[in-house]
Amino acid sequence: MSAEVPAEALQLRSLVSADQVLELFLDLVPVPEPGPGEVLIRVEAAPLNPSDMGLLFGGADMAAAVAGGSGGRQVVTAPIPDAAMRGLAGRAGTPMPAGNEGAGTVVAAGGSAAARALLGKVVAAAGGGMYSQYRSVNVALCLELLAGATAIDGAASFVNPMTVLGMVETMRMENHSALVHTAAASSLGQMLSRLGLEQQIPLVNIVRKPDHEAMLRAAGAVHVCNSTSAGFMAELTGALTATGATLAFDAIGGGRLASQILTGMEAAASAAAGGYSRYGSAVHKQVYIYGSLDRGPTELIRSYGTAWGIGGWLLTPFLQKAGLARVAQLRDQVAAGLTTTFATSYTAQVSLPGALSLEAIADYGRQATGSKYVIIPSRAP
Amino acid sequence: MSAEVPAEALQLRSLVSADQVLELFLDLVPVPEPGPGEVLIRVEAAPLNPSDMGLLFGGADMAAAVAGGSGGRQVVTAPIPDAAMRGLAGRAGTPMPAGNEGAGTVVAAGGSAAARALLGKVVAAAGGGMYSQYRSVNVALCLELLAGATAIDGAASFVNPMTVLGMVETMRMENHSALVHTAAASSLGQMLSRLGLEQQIPLVNIVRKPDHEAMLRAAGAVHVCNSTSAGFMAELTGALTATGATLAFDAIGGGRLASQILTGMEAAASAAAGGYSRYGSAVHKQVYIYGSLDRGPTELIRSYGTAWGIGGWLLTPFLQKAGLARVAQLRDQVAAGLTTTFATSYTAQVSLPGALSLEAIADYGRQATGSKYVIIPSRAP
Repeated sequence: MSAEVPAEALQLRSLVSADQVLELFLDLVPVPEPGPGEVLIRVEAAPLNPSDMGLLFGGADMAAAVAGGSGGRQVVTAPIPDAAMRGLAGRAGTPMPAGNEGAGTVVAAGGSAAARALLGKVVAAAGGGMYSQYRSVNVALCLELLAGATAIDGAASFVNPMTVLGMVETMRMENHSALVHTAAASSLGQMLSRLGLEQQIPLVNIVRKPDHEAMLRAAGAVHVCNSTSAGFMAELTGALTATGATLAFDAIGGGRLASQILTGMEAAASAAAGGYSRYGSAVHKQVYIYGSLDRGPTELIRSYGTAWGIGGWLLTPFLQKAGLARVAQLRDQVAAGLTTTFATSYTAQVSLPGALSLEAIADYGRQATGSKYVIIPSRAP
Repeated sequence: MSAEVPAEALQLRSLVSADQVLELFLDLVPVPEPGPGEVLIRVEAAPLNPSDMGLLFGGADMAAAVAGGSGGRQVVTAPIPDAAMRGLAGRAGTPMPAGNEGAGTVVAAGGSAAARALLGKVVAAAGGGMYSQYRSVNVALCLELLAGATAIDGAASFVNPMTVLGMVETMRMENHSALVHTAAASSLGQMLSRLGLEQQIPLVNIVRKPDHEAMLRAAGAVHVCNSTSAGFMAELTGALTATGATLAFDAIGGGRLASQILTGMEAAASAAAGGYSRYGSAVHKQVYIYGSLDRGPTELIRSYGTAWGIGGWLLTPFLQKAGLARVAQLRDQVAAGLTTTFATSYTAQVSLPGALSLEAIADYGRQATGSKYVIIPSRAP
């Protein structure tokens, strides 16, 4: 291993204790020797995505988080409610590294040709545990960035890009021809909007704020509905009629929005079919919940006949269904569009210790649209 | 046409008026000449199924129904709430015949060999409009009853038997190996319980009353859980663990029961998988809502990871998916088990005028488990 690689380096860890306390802290962990098919990445950028929050916070009440620690060891602790604790028994007592994805420079490689070929390259990786200064990752999980692309350009090249591509692929696999997306002004939403415009996929964007509506329209979005507007249901039904969208991806989860989307789809489908159908329209209407910005109950006011479905959607099973060959094609598509279609912009860069400041946690923990953090692990506090 | 067939006969009709009033009445309608591939059935028995109530009552408030009419024409009227009226615009002003299924004797036939072969036979038919004294139906919709079976034996040979067979077929098509069923003491539930025992399909029966629990157990059911019992979630999870059921058919629809079933399935699947999985178990858990005994909102407390789905289920699309050949096999299976596996018992027989008495409507309209009506159209009031 190269002389410049230290023996130990920092890693952000999340620990759930049996007495229902979450601890977030930095540990000095041994820098691993890469296995034959692995590369050692010096992580230079790793985004804080909504999909990282579950592992990081373990459902703890972060509004009650306190900063502590002694002897230079910074620790954030927060209480875990009973309801959240039920699903966490399996991880209690085991400190877990976090960070789904990131990018950096390959500073060492295992013996395989594929691994050695990446030496010195900037790669993105979806290897988990990316909130670390060094990470050994299998070559299959790495994406070599095109010349000129930086680690910050590539840090978020997996989760959001593959999710929006997964939504479009799912649309095609399940025989829909247009999409509805909620929380549509998010980083992911803007990406989907750009992809939709490029691929001429009719898209209904649902947002919650007038300025998000304006922002998406300025970027070229045709159908943007504000769910807080008085005329929402009429506007939504109009957009669903215009696009024929019968598939929605919902990042919110709780409340009545998923049900409202199904109601609008049914109104559009019934109007198109004409006449009375005692069991509702025959067109299948589907909502996939892929996020949980509202963790409250989902309420379904079932007024959309019998041809409807709602369910969870997760990237990993989709990738398995799509198959390795198709996933490789999609990854190439991402690499080619990394600074255009699939670009992510950040509102804040933080160091590893900075990611544990209560101020930063309060900000990125809100998962507010328009705020996006990236960790720069090499940066001093 | 035979001399014994009258020119006109009674038919029960349901009319939604534009001013939000439901009218139920009997009309004298011309007895149709059967087309080439049709038979004319003298309907001798037609059940009042939960699936008939939507067309019959049109969502009207039947608790406010009044009996009226003049000149010997009996009419029941009831107000239709605004919410129900929205889906009914397409049928306003058109009197609609009701009754999904029934059975009777073929008294005339069209020119085709298949039609003529049924002359004089007792057949069951799922032709719609079966609350009529005579009904012309395509031969393809008829099931010839085995010798000795009566019209009452065969009256309910389509909707419930094909639905329980459809549930089992769906279980196999979607790679599940056991079933959960709610409102499990219903006619349909008892049928599914018998079919499950015969075919050795592990079944979790969910009921709401202790005597229904006892009744199913006495009939041989192994897993019966009472959703009103204090230990329900623990009992349900135990039964789900024992059976490995990851598919449920829910007749209730509203409330939290569907969500409780998914929660129990997730607990069973997580225990089986062992360890912590941040996105929940990888096993897909599915609930299909096929009835709506509770028309209130469905509330989903999403604590079952991402591999779950809930949706509507209807017999007709299933039959289309299964294909004609498979449906024909299933129909033969029903004919063979008409007085055993697929038997339906009735608590009341009513004439056509009797079906319009407020007392009868109040009784069968409740769709209470343990109460089952059949109309005998030839019977005097």
